[in-house]
Amino acid sequence: MEVPPPLVLKRALFVPSKTLMGPGPSNCSQRVLEAMSNPVLGHMHPECLQIMDEVKEGIKYIFQTLNDATMCISGAGHSGMEAALCNLIEEDDVVLMGITGVWGHRAADMARRYGADVRYVEASFGRALTLEEIRFAFDTHKPRVFFVTQGDSSTGILQRHICEIGELCRQHDCFLVVDVVASLGGTDFLMDEWKVDVAYTGSQKALGGPAGLTPISFSKRALTHIRQRKSKPKVYYFDILLIGQYWGCYGTPRIYHHTISATLLYGLREALAHFCAMGLKKVVQRHQECSNRLQLGIEELGLEMFVQHEPDRLPTVNTIKVPFGVDWKKVADYAMRKYNLEISGGLGPTVEHVFRIGLMGENATLEKVDMVLSILNEAIQSIKLRAVKAERSKI
Amino acid sequence: MEVPPPLVLKRALFVPSKTLMGPGPSNCSQRVLEAMSNPVLGHMHPECLQIMDEVKEGIKYIFQTLNDATMCISGAGHSGMEAALCNLIEEDDVVLMGITGVWGHRAADMARRYGADVRYVEASFGRALTLEEIRFAFDTHKPRVFFVTQGDSSTGILQRHICEIGELCRQHDCFLVVDVVASLGGTDFLMDEWKVDVAYTGSQKALGGPAGLTPISFSKRALTHIRQRKSKPKVYYFDILLIGQYWGCYGTPRIYHHTISATLLYGLREALAHFCAMGLKKVVQRHQECSNRLQLGIEELGLEMFVQHEPDRLPTVNTIKVPFGVDWKKVADYAMRKYNLEISGGLGPTVEHVFRIGLMGENATLEKVDMVLSILNEAIQSIKLRAVKAERSKI
Repeated sequence: MEVPPPLVLKRALFVPSKTLMGPGPSNCSQRVLEAMSNPVLGHMHPECLQIMDEVKEGIKYIFQTLNDATMCISGAGHSGMEAALCNLIEEDDVVLMGITGVWGHRAADMARRYGADVRYVEASFGRALTLEEIRFAFDTHKPRVFFVTQGDSSTGILQRHICEIGELCRQHDCFLVVDVVASLGGTDFLMDEWKVDVAYTGSQKALGGPAGLTPISFSKRALTHIRQRKSKPKVYYFDILLIGQYWGCYGTPRIYHHTISATLLYGLREALAHFCAMGLKKVVQRHQECSNRLQLGIEELGLEMFVQHEPDRLPTVNTIKVPFGVDWKKVADYAMRKYNLEISGGLGPTVEHVFRIGLMGENATLEKVDMVLSILNEAIQSIKLRAVKAERSKI
Repeated sequence: MEVPPPLVLKRALFVPSKTLMGPGPSNCSQRVLEAMSNPVLGHMHPECLQIMDEVKEGIKYIFQTLNDATMCISGAGHSGMEAALCNLIEEDDVVLMGITGVWGHRAADMARRYGADVRYVEASFGRALTLEEIRFAFDTHKPRVFFVTQGDSSTGILQRHICEIGELCRQHDCFLVVDVVASLGGTDFLMDEWKVDVAYTGSQKALGGPAGLTPISFSKRALTHIRQRKSKPKVYYFDILLIGQYWGCYGTPRIYHHTISATLLYGLREALAHFCAMGLKKVVQRHQECSNRLQLGIEELGLEMFVQHEPDRLPTVNTIKVPFGVDWKKVADYAMRKYNLEISGGLGPTVEHVFRIGLMGENATLEKVDMVLSILNEAIQSIKLRAVKAERSKI
């Protein structure tokens, strides 16, 4: 038997240009895209290590941390979640999952595979967790690790009070893992001041970098704990003592751990450089302004935000209730077909109930907000009209 | 405390253009580099899924397999090793590691973390494993999984007889994992015909794609075994039942598993397209011819190949003994400084003993072979001369 070369690969590569206003990825700037066509470098070449150092400094800034153990995992955002849990968890550790959407459940799946005793504290539907709920859960479960998502992209919920949660974790000798994949750049996050032990973010959201490298940082306290583990972390690929050595985090000679993608490093470096040049506060402010304008516009269109309590709304991924009788899929298809614009449907508990509109990075501008509002409205009206016509034709 | 934006990110990105003739990455072609500056796509967009399908077909061709469970892991080559072991291994399984360099030891580290009972069969220094050694080890250890590297990039050893090893594994009800990271494209590999259960390769070697996406394939037999596991694989991120669902491998609806890097997909797709257009046999032949010419040239220069037995020599990563009294590092530095050419030193057991010269992808041409030979010779002579002068000045 011989497998022939596939005919599909004789065709030219076709990549359409779209406006990505779903939950991510967002569009990369021209600067980021162009950087990625630079020639590749070896993963141990001084110029590559230099770019890694620059990326590391950029990550420290966006996380507002001085943690030595700041680096990237070579993988999607999910690999950041894996690395956080894999390094902290030992067999039978009680891990408490804060649930405001799908991501706490995803973390639970991972943690259970690492042998954790997983417990839950779940917010009321469409709301963030209250400090009272969390305190009660801490007293009940006495967790070794607490996981919470600052911005849950499946529900559009912003978990506030991370600072107070950090304090609570210290009191209970518990490690705090905060998923800032969808929130970073869209809302305040002060890793050190808030006593967060592990944080990781998505490169392809508010940062506007390419997917595939996941910024992550571990506090000194977490690092000390990891150094004293009884057993090695279950996964070599996510072992941050080894990865951090490659990233030059611990003042020891750099040792090869895996072959990093130079291409993605270039893209992430340029995204971080742009982000830093704008300034963290201004970026956050812009994302917030865009979301405010979107929320106002949604109201003016007679639509309703999914998250009732305004301060619980995530500015980066905005969830809007699908109006009664409207098929969300047809609306999304209309926007994509006519305008090459991505508006997304729900995920997990919000499937079929919400539209998700991402205002992140390059797409967090007032012009884009006005555009997406106008197209969303046009699409809904058109779908409604079609439904009415279809009804009439039946009569 | 406030962490200021880093000054280093105010500088422009600087990426020198080098000729990468170490053990990988090799240079990407202009076609591959340009593809990666295309706009990003969402990870569930039909155009992205289409490219994934095309990549999948390309991988089937280069592996010579019809396996449904053919996909990429979103990570470096190491993540392919992880995925192979993570999915096959259950607690206390006996895993036999074939050792011809560092990679069997790396796999051992991973397997042990997954709870495997790791055993070894080690080749004599500088030689491949013989079938007798493997048979004896099978009888002694009765392994559930046998891991072997077809081409060990640390020693430049080619492990032949994969076909016979495949047969042996079937007889012993053992799963065969073959690491073809450094060998694929440089030597024959027939996954189905040779009854290999899991294979994964590097994208950034003979394929000439970017690092960061790792082609992998599982046999039907392996897949059936994985479906019948007593416990879930230890790592969600490497769970090929889930990843394969996202890649549309099992005829079920595509389900989001992680955010794939569209950028890397473009690059890999173009690398595969180029590879397929040239044809597997021709690519292998070209790599072999280049290595033959290099080996001849090395002899003519009065140097010596590290692997004594000629049929055990890997054509992609060629190991050459460092001449007595020469500092390999100075030679490599000379080539890099004067010609922007990467010649690499050893790794693991070969550190300080060998030069490693990669002839892969874009760099597997007779012109490049002649170039690297001439520069290697110039560099060695220059370093020798300097050493002589330094000696004389002491007198």
